[in-house]
Amino acid sequence: MKIGYLGPEGTFTHQAALKYTKRLENFELVAFPVITDVLQAVENGYVDQGVVPFENSIEGTVTFTIDSLIFDVDVVIEAEIINPIRHNLVAKKGTKAKDLVKILSHPQALAQCKKYLEAKFKNVEKIQFGSTAGAAKTISENMEAWGAICTADAAEAFGLEILEEDIQDENHNKTRFLVVSKKYNANPKYEGKTSIVFSTEDKPGELYKILDIISIWDLNMTKIESRPMKNELGKYVFYVDMESSNAADIRDAIKMIERKTAFFKYLGTYYTLK
Amino acid sequence: MKIGYLGPEGTFTHQAALKYTKRLENFELVAFPVITDVLQAVENGYVDQGVVPFENSIEGTVTFTIDSLIFDVDVVIEAEIINPIRHNLVAKKGTKAKDLVKILSHPQALAQCKKYLEAKFKNVEKIQFGSTAGAAKTISENMEAWGAICTADAAEAFGLEILEEDIQDENHNKTRFLVVSKKYNANPKYEGKTSIVFSTEDKPGELYKILDIISIWDLNMTKIESRPMKNELGKYVFYVDMESSNAADIRDAIKMIERKTAFFKYLGTYYTLK
Repeated sequence: MKIGYLGPEGTFTHQAALKYTKRLENFELVAFPVITDVLQAVENGYVDQGVVPFENSIEGTVTFTIDSLIFDVDVVIEAEIINPIRHNLVAKKGTKAKDLVKILSHPQALAQCKKYLEAKFKNVEKIQFGSTAGAAKTISENMEAWGAICTADAAEAFGLEILEEDIQDENHNKTRFLVVSKKYNANPKYEGKTSIVFSTEDKPGELYKILDIISIWDLNMTKIESRPMKNELGKYVFYVDMESSNAADIRDAIKMIERKTAFFKYLGTYYTLK
Repeated sequence: MKIGYLGPEGTFTHQAALKYTKRLENFELVAFPVITDVLQAVENGYVDQGVVPFENSIEGTVTFTIDSLIFDVDVVIEAEIINPIRHNLVAKKGTKAKDLVKILSHPQALAQCKKYLEAKFKNVEKIQFGSTAGAAKTISENMEAWGAICTADAAEAFGLEILEEDIQDENHNKTRFLVVSKKYNANPKYEGKTSIVFSTEDKPGELYKILDIISIWDLNMTKIESRPMKNELGKYVFYVDMESSNAADIRDAIKMIERKTAFFKYLGTYYTLK
């Protein structure tokens, strides 16, 4: 079994993939450089499953992931993984924090340590990088006193020293990852969290009508997000997560919503790994 | 009257600010480097009004703007400006498109021309820049064959040549800008579009209850967006735009929503400039 993830090794997505694959016996992890590559590899059958970041408690939904799921690929969600995000300031061994001239990391990691960086490294140049692990690799190969913000795993992988750990501004910083597989035709069991996307007809009150269906079937809507339709300002596709202990209620609500929406896509019903 | 905007000159926000100030007689435009600086200058009274990008028909809501309005600053929306976004590939005079080694622009501009860049400049390095106009300025000062994606105004301002115009992937590409001023105490007239943010109590069905109020008062909800509360994964603040021809209905709906929500902020009732 091949499992793709947003790489390289040492990223938060890699950590999530390792947590997910603990239960598996035979598997091979395959790193991809960007989120859409992971999702497309799943759709094309190059890998059996893919692990991608979906939502962070501070930054919000990862636009690339949600837009790909809505518009580009046909995959189903098999599981979600909720992981705490702990950032570390790292540098080559022997480097002192006060000597750093540049700090490299993924834009979200830089944003999540913004207050820390403002307080301690206000005048140090911040460089945006494609991944936290890529930033770690780059500074390990550079002669100057550069720092990176990354996981402890990445620091170890590239022989770097942790100058300060847990530098994230919020200690409630968590990220939700999704495990997706190729769209199956079997009937799902509708046990767990269910995700759907839809657009309504262009009349006032249409979104309210759909939320009414969710309310009538006693489903607990845990997330609603709007994404632009891309063809006109003010037109949206809605992403909804909902939960219920009654699988039949979810199944019937989905049928009703599908009939009452202009565009509908079922993204899956899945369990949570914390 | 001082009006701040997300600069430098030649940005899309500058274009929007010029459109807005056409009606004014005495004003001075002040450029700021980042969105939060514009909003804070309004709150501090350093400028009277500020113009910031809020939402693009392809990329969605500008996270910095919506999060600042929700969590950081107390300002009210005075007007919204809807402008078409037209991107141009530019370079120093005499440069040929095939010789370009780098293309610089704001991440959103690069994303909005993604298909064009993939088709014609697949192997040319793309560099993310703080603003489209800043990218234009940088390539005008560089000796190598670098390209930028920017407005026609920015190309003219920095003496650059337009190699190809209207390179955006979607021709429905529009951006919504907001004009904000310092929070006033006077009663608003409730004529036009109204924006509010709120969070509900942590019980199933609470968001539905608020949307029910909007439905009961016959308000047309034109946008709903969820943003993370930042302190816990799965907790959200909701941003809602709504319209009605009846000002009293809006006023009474707002009163009711304020009483029935855990956190509430009125962002203003305002007109649209197209």
